[in-house]
Amino acid sequence: MEKGSVATAFHVLIVVIVCLCNKAVSGGFVKYNTGSGVVEGKLNVHLVAHSHDDVGWLKTVDQYYVGSNNSIQAACIENVLDSVMESLVRDPNRKFVFAEMAFFQRWWLTQTVEMQEQVRKLVEAGQLEFVNGGWCMHDEATCHYIDMIDQTTLGHRAIKEQFNKAPRAGWQIDTFGHSAVQAYLLGAELGFDSVHFARIDYQDREKRKRDKSLEVIWRGSRTLGSSSQIFANAFPVHYGPPPGFRFEINGDFIPIQDNPLLFDSNVEKRVHDFINAAFTQANVTRTNHIMWTMGGDFEYQYAESWFKEMDKLIHYVNKDGRVNALYSTPSIYSDAKNAANQSWPLKTDDYFPYADVVNSYWTGFFTSRPSLKRYVRMLSGYYLAARQLEFLVGKRSTGPNTFSLGDALGIAQHHDAVTGTSKQHTTNDYAKRLSIGASEAEAVVSAALSCLTTGKSGEQCKDPALTFSQCQLLNISYCPPTEEGIPEGESLVVVAYNPLGWNRTENVRIPVNDASLAVQDSLGNSLEAQFVSLDNVTINIRNFYTKAYLGLSSKQVPKFWLIFQVSVPPLGWNTYFISRRPTRGKNRNGFFSVMDSPQNETIEIGPGDLKMSFSVASGQLQRMYDSKTGVDVPIQQSFLWYNSSSEIPGSGAYIFRPESFPKIASRSVNLKVFRGPLVDEIHQEFSSWIYQVTRLYRDKQHAEVEFTIGPIPNEDYTGREVITRMTTNMTTEKVFYTDSNGRDFIKRVRDYRSDWSLLVNQPVAGNYYPLNLGIFTSEKKYEFSVLVDRATGGASIRDGELELMLHRRVLFDDHKGLEEALDETVCINGNSICEGLTVRGNYYVNINQVGEGARWRRKTGQEVYSPLVLAFTHEKLEKWTACHLTKASTMDSNYTLPPNVALITLQELDDGSVLVRLAHLYEAAEVPEYSTLTKVELKKMFSGKMIKEVKEMSLSANQDKSEMKRMEWKVEGNDTEPIPVRGGPVNNSTLLVELGPMEIRTFLLKF
Amino acid sequence: MEKGSVATAFHVLIVVIVCLCNKAVSGGFVKYNTGSGVVEGKLNVHLVAHSHDDVGWLKTVDQYYVGSNNSIQAACIENVLDSVMESLVRDPNRKFVFAEMAFFQRWWLTQTVEMQEQVRKLVEAGQLEFVNGGWCMHDEATCHYIDMIDQTTLGHRAIKEQFNKAPRAGWQIDTFGHSAVQAYLLGAELGFDSVHFARIDYQDREKRKRDKSLEVIWRGSRTLGSSSQIFANAFPVHYGPPPGFRFEINGDFIPIQDNPLLFDSNVEKRVHDFINAAFTQANVTRTNHIMWTMGGDFEYQYAESWFKEMDKLIHYVNKDGRVNALYSTPSIYSDAKNAANQSWPLKTDDYFPYADVVNSYWTGFFTSRPSLKRYVRMLSGYYLAARQLEFLVGKRSTGPNTFSLGDALGIAQHHDAVTGTSKQHTTNDYAKRLSIGASEAEAVVSAALSCLTTGKSGEQCKDPALTFSQCQLLNISYCPPTEEGIPEGESLVVVAYNPLGWNRTENVRIPVNDASLAVQDSLGNSLEAQFVSLDNVTINIRNFYTKAYLGLSSKQVPKFWLIFQVSVPPLGWNTYFISRRPTRGKNRNGFFSVMDSPQNETIEIGPGDLKMSFSVASGQLQRMYDSKTGVDVPIQQSFLWYNSSSEIPGSGAYIFRPESFPKIASRSVNLKVFRGPLVDEIHQEFSSWIYQVTRLYRDKQHAEVEFTIGPIPNEDYTGREVITRMTTNMTTEKVFYTDSNGRDFIKRVRDYRSDWSLLVNQPVAGNYYPLNLGIFTSEKKYEFSVLVDRATGGASIRDGELELMLHRRVLFDDHKGLEEALDETVCINGNSICEGLTVRGNYYVNINQVGEGARWRRKTGQEVYSPLVLAFTHEKLEKWTACHLTKASTMDSNYTLPPNVALITLQELDDGSVLVRLAHLYEAAEVPEYSTLTKVELKKMFSGKMIKEVKEMSLSANQDKSEMKRMEWKVEGNDTEPIPVRGGPVNNSTLLVELGPMEIRTFLLKF
Repeated sequence: MEKGSVATAFHVLIVVIVCLCNKAVSGGFVKYNTGSGVVEGKLNVHLVAHSHDDVGWLKTVDQYYVGSNNSIQAACIENVLDSVMESLVRDPNRKFVFAEMAFFQRWWLTQTVEMQEQVRKLVEAGQLEFVNGGWCMHDEATCHYIDMIDQTTLGHRAIKEQFNKAPRAGWQIDTFGHSAVQAYLLGAELGFDSVHFARIDYQDREKRKRDKSLEVIWRGSRTLGSSSQIFANAFPVHYGPPPGFRFEINGDFIPIQDNPLLFDSNVEKRVHDFINAAFTQANVTRTNHIMWTMGGDFEYQYAESWFKEMDKLIHYVNKDGRVNALYSTPSIYSDAKNAANQSWPLKTDDYFPYADVVNSYWTGFFTSRPSLKRYVRMLSGYYLAARQLEFLVGKRSTGPNTFSLGDALGIAQHHDAVTGTSKQHTTNDYAKRLSIGASEAEAVVSAALSCLTTGKSGEQCKDPALTFSQCQLLNISYCPPTEEGIPEGESLVVVAYNPLGWNRTENVRIPVNDASLAVQDSLGNSLEAQFVSLDNVTINIRNFYTKAYLGLSSKQVPKFWLIFQVSVPPLGWNTYFISRRPTRGKNRNGFFSVMDSPQNETIEIGPGDLKMSFSVASGQLQRMYDSKTGVDVPIQQSFLWYNSSSEIPGSGAYIFRPESFPKIASRSVNLKVFRGPLVDEIHQEFSSWIYQVTRLYRDKQHAEVEFTIGPIPNEDYTGREVITRMTTNMTTEKVFYTDSNGRDFIKRVRDYRSDWSLLVNQPVAGNYYPLNLGIFTSEKKYEFSVLVDRATGGASIRDGELELMLHRRVLFDDHKGLEEALDETVCINGNSICEGLTVRGNYYVNINQVGEGARWRRKTGQEVYSPLVLAFTHEKLEKWTACHLTKASTMDSNYTLPPNVALITLQELDDGSVLVRLAHLYEAAEVPEYSTLTKVELKKMFSGKMIKEVKEMSLSANQDKSEMKRMEWKVEGNDTEPIPVRGGPVNNSTLLVELGPMEIRTFLLKF
Repeated sequence: MEKGSVATAFHVLIVVIVCLCNKAVSGGFVKYNTGSGVVEGKLNVHLVAHSHDDVGWLKTVDQYYVGSNNSIQAACIENVLDSVMESLVRDPNRKFVFAEMAFFQRWWLTQTVEMQEQVRKLVEAGQLEFVNGGWCMHDEATCHYIDMIDQTTLGHRAIKEQFNKAPRAGWQIDTFGHSAVQAYLLGAELGFDSVHFARIDYQDREKRKRDKSLEVIWRGSRTLGSSSQIFANAFPVHYGPPPGFRFEINGDFIPIQDNPLLFDSNVEKRVHDFINAAFTQANVTRTNHIMWTMGGDFEYQYAESWFKEMDKLIHYVNKDGRVNALYSTPSIYSDAKNAANQSWPLKTDDYFPYADVVNSYWTGFFTSRPSLKRYVRMLSGYYLAARQLEFLVGKRSTGPNTFSLGDALGIAQHHDAVTGTSKQHTTNDYAKRLSIGASEAEAVVSAALSCLTTGKSGEQCKDPALTFSQCQLLNISYCPPTEEGIPEGESLVVVAYNPLGWNRTENVRIPVNDASLAVQDSLGNSLEAQFVSLDNVTINIRNFYTKAYLGLSSKQVPKFWLIFQVSVPPLGWNTYFISRRPTRGKNRNGFFSVMDSPQNETIEIGPGDLKMSFSVASGQLQRMYDSKTGVDVPIQQSFLWYNSSSEIPGSGAYIFRPESFPKIASRSVNLKVFRGPLVDEIHQEFSSWIYQVTRLYRDKQHAEVEFTIGPIPNEDYTGREVITRMTTNMTTEKVFYTDSNGRDFIKRVRDYRSDWSLLVNQPVAGNYYPLNLGIFTSEKKYEFSVLVDRATGGASIRDGELELMLHRRVLFDDHKGLEEALDETVCINGNSICEGLTVRGNYYVNINQVGEGARWRRKTGQEVYSPLVLAFTHEKLEKWTACHLTKASTMDSNYTLPPNVALITLQELDDGSVLVRLAHLYEAAEVPEYSTLTKVELKKMFSGKMIKEVKEMSLSANQDKSEMKRMEWKVEGNDTEPIPVRGGPVNNSTLLVELGPMEIRTFLLKF
């Protein structure tokens, strides 16, 4: 007799005694049989226990974790994790999946060694499975793919370190539509077998239910095709259980009452309910396997409340025998689906835009909170550069590092963070975290540049002598080191670091107070310098915002922008010196841009090949042409705003629902023109709250357009959603292209979905798509492209036209749970003076011969994402050049990355190994010259270092690439497609990395 | 190095590593120091973790247990107990107290052997302490002391069996005022050191806070004085924690945030809050010990939510050091109080009535749901008798027993059950449980009488041949066995069992269809029989209620009441035979009462010494006099109703708040008079909904008054609270007496409290007191007493006057959480026809020479509580007498209990031992002749049985009396009082039990 049996026998005895004492029937302990696995030939109901824990939404991430601020929402993730572990330990058949590592790590770090050991056992036994496993459940519309990779890596590395496990399932249950990049890159390339989600268009869902095509094989990448496919499971309803099976503590459900000593026994009834619900779902699902998502938002506050009911259901349902219920996970479910030998529908492209019901297009959030979106994107690029620099000088074991910025950025990718759909106080918390992280990363950058420029590394630069200043608020002209007077005899030293793998030439703009400053390069050569007076709009913003956010009340503002051109080697830096000109010398290279007074009906600007002409009468753009390419396009540009609908649901943080067609924001536009050798600027004042500066640099192929929008008026209680609209005469036949998370471009056709016959109810909102890189359209002759500096909603509502939604101020909640209007304000004087948020940013406009736009888009996209890092100090030019390396590449000085490859990660990990990711930038056939297999020479990239080991990894670097398993799936119909080009294994001696189009390869290097 | 140290060292290492990885400061595991005990010289804050779990209120007891019906109230006791155990196991310093064994037993019986073992360890270690430990937290106003003892015993015996523990603390935190009997009997006599509660009059509380007299030494019994005193702790606010320290899951509290990795750290702030709250309470408390009641209604749904916060508080508060916080229990707290060598104020009598705020007297519930109150009281007496019979024939190991009735009665004593303050559906559940229990007990009684009358016992009467019928609905004339035609040649056999220890003579009333029936005793002697026609009011009620509750639609009703006198030996039975008279014989003994037609202005009734006279004109009582005692009192009686106040809070299930003085329910009263040799009846129709029958039996000293009230009109949206008022000319000088739970009488003075200077705001409601036995008042000459048949509110609002509130129908909720009006209805025809509940019952009126009333009250009280048990069958008289014992006492045939002693428990326990409780019925000096030490001869009581062992026990039989410890307490002032008379130890050979006044002694006997 085993120990268990003795206990059982003993127990039976006690139950009998109890019976005798307390008469008749005893409640007695019931051992529920919860151990069922998959049963062939029966309908298998996979119960997937989960808690959906937003990494900030109505409350901040920490408030959710500790359970404070419960008056807003009763939620405490510490309770979820505490109680789930207890419940899992109680019965080894129970299973639970958890997604958000930002929360899990908070919990894990405060556990005892014993509890950590216990949890390791649960993970090992498959009771606790991590799904997604990133820092958060990132958004798929407004995140950049590099951020998605980074935040996933953060979580996956932690799981790997703590549990030696790699998640197998994507779990994007709540994100508001689903991207192609998610499917192939943040899915298949991570080693996921499947991805699961709830939110697809309601029309799409209905059709898929009819076709039993909710579950598909999804090939998100046109280029990589079946080599990056994934099994995708769209839920038939939402991510909760069927009605009546939600068992949250204090919830109003009907517990299974099987105790004969108590009243109201209901086992038969509840089993009947269960089987009914199961067959209902089976009717829309292929194979004998259905998944029940047993959980919801912040549920499992007391996990036992769920598990005890599920125990009973499994026990009694299986006793009944009509269906088979089991504790399961997305992995087990996908394995069962895979084993079923079923053919699945093929799905390509993505699931955007998303509408949950008629007239409810979730396309407002593509733009909501544009300043947060910009802050995230700016720091994303900065984080990439900072990690490069951190690696280049050797990560320090103490002192500042880039972790807190990575942590803050990881949190900010959450689908209620960068999306702009959290409450204002939570948004403030995201910004605060980013700000703290950025400050620490600035210290890393400053120290690293100090080391690099002095030729030191590792221990040598433990305490860098010199601190560089950096300027995060350059866009509003706030930069103390450049504004300050330069001490007599010294220069303002500007070190520009280039995080790209190519040499680049850029125009630097800094605010100064002296229009007679001279600029020299590191060899002492004088450079052209152009000065432009600061405009009043910038001055006003600067004053208000430095007061609001920095507490500064000084009204002293710099007088000029100083512009000069710099050239910086790949992964390297160059140094420039700005000095006061001896009063007696003459202004050889300085050019002070004065305002031009137009004489004709038309003004033309552009110091280089690219020209733009504006009507003096209307103040509006008329034409854009490039003398080099010969492209010549009539083009108008204007600002308009959509009036948010007053119907319910109207526009809100999530929803975009305009009342009608947009209204022009201005009839007459004030024009100012500034010209110079480096740049021509045209300033357009569209209204008191819309200002635009268009800059044509001499050596750029595009117009850089800086918009300043706000405060958006709201005195008339009208929600306004502001767009810039560019109208050409191109015949684009409804077609346009938008990027997927800044990577692949996807073809869009207005008022059309390839997966179902679209019933159009929102002719504007239903045609909006998320942009992270940009949007373009083309016709026989020309291609018209616009790139963005942050996540932005965009569309082509009429042929030849492109529009971007740049800012939104809506005055009502949109009934998606936020319960707050998207009405951002900024206050000063202890909140006594508030005004609507003003947003400033750039977009980039290019016209090109058809087929030529891609090259510009890819290269410029990299430049926009990874601007030069500028660092400032003061020193005598001679002294500086005497003891500093003024210009260098950290790569072999003759080496540069191929133009179709970007280094998207270079990061030293905690264990000293180095994470390197290389990304091919072109899709198959995008640009014949570039859409080819290309090579990177690691030895030359890391020329000063000795590479000891190169291990190719999965995208998140949590498993050896060679060990990644791929499931085989059958798709319906004729499954032929070209075999994608992919690079071969890396030879250990040559260390050449091949990359096929769109390929991203991830390596762990040891030096 | 111990194992713990290794783990700790290991842990430190991990934390360090974590620090390195995740920068700067780590959250890390924090081992909270929760192990503080009492610290001398500091303010000790005793944190008492508790969950207040009503055994039915807004939901039924089972709904609360399993957590169903959460839309009414989110509460699941299974979660409380599951999660508390988990939390206690996590830290051996944590403590929790639990009170309600009805819940605990539901839980215990479904646990694994391992969990039961775990819980035993927790109890053994003092982590889990049972407080109160009864089946429920019984009410103190509307419960009979025998029910209180029974329900406490049920719980205490279970605790004893499962844990070998005896609770040490009374925990009546929520009951609505506190009774003297609770203090001494259900307190000190149980072996409790202390009792703790929240609800005392708001004026009283304010004064006690000023005096630091919330904590007292309470001597509830005038007779037993300091020998039955208890330390009583009235909380300064309520039974929850100080504001801001309620840590219920999903609650809106501020968690202590001590993790340096997270935002919003607040340790200092929360420690400060804690200390502030502690000093605030210390200011109204004597000694250095204060108790914080850390819990509330149905809280600890997820116990860890509380414990983790308390862990942190204890840790950081003690680190601060200004006060000492500790996990504690009422026992630990009382020990500390006792050790403090402090003098305490003395408190006598009780804490009734209770008002929580001005105008909110909780005196309505003394009467709320009078039919439930009656059902409970009726079954209480029946349960006592059934257990006697169950013992007398030997408890059967299978088949019906009295447990389920005991269980149902235990539950019904809950302070929202018999109080009438639960929702209607919950009330129905109580009634259903009582009904199921009663049915099973009926089977026990039937089988036992079958055995006893056939002289069998034990195994012999396993399958009794004969089944007796019993009639629970005799009061509405529903009794099928007596109504049926008697088969030719047979008789209706009536067996009357007497649960009292004395011989008694009673009048039996049964409904019959034949006014020529003859009654014979067991020797064949003819007895006087009186017939009275059934009145229409009874017929209507019978028809409506048998349809509503039994589904009977037959309109056949019995025609007559048959009344005859029976005489039954102590703890014995007698048999009577009712037969059809041979048609030729003449009606020798039958008397058919015809309606009297009064000729004079006054009608006088009364076949014996006691007479009453009524005015023919007004139909009202004028005078009551006793020719034997010479007492002669002018007395009026009328029905009135209070108009429930429309102010908030107005009257409701809890609150009595009349608008003004009561309104007369009728101006003219219809009279009918029926006379006969055994009884004279006068029927008064006060209105269409108030009917009263006054019966004067030949051999009784009192008037038995049967009232029938209802349906109370509510068409005018007016709440009506109906009273009977009896007005004499006695000069009672504000003084009257009401019983405490049916036992001690307590002096009441109108508009006066002995403990504080009363500010009168409710001159009626504030003078109401709960009655369970009765009420009396007296003056120089006479004593005027009224006994009740159930819990009833009563008062003397003017001198010479007594009133009883008999029924209430109020149309609004009183804002005490019930959220339901007390508007009882009864429905037929699938709820298509409903009417207000009609209530029928009795009260008993006695006038006596001053000092002589007590004898009547005590004896009649016993008779009312323990009526004869009647059982019916049909058989030939000769055949029956041939093989049945027709009359017997189960005691020595020459023995009877002394007139001042009652046998209040005789019950065979599961282990075969027999529980015997004997109660002295008189208080010190109540009746000089009876208020003395008296003796019971156990040998003669159990004459047919051999007593092997007699062990004296505590009141709840959970500990040897000899081992009960009593704490010594110092009281303020001069503490002299007469030494109470108590019986000495029982000599093992003589087996004489001595009882002093008011003494109750409990024994376990083995035969």
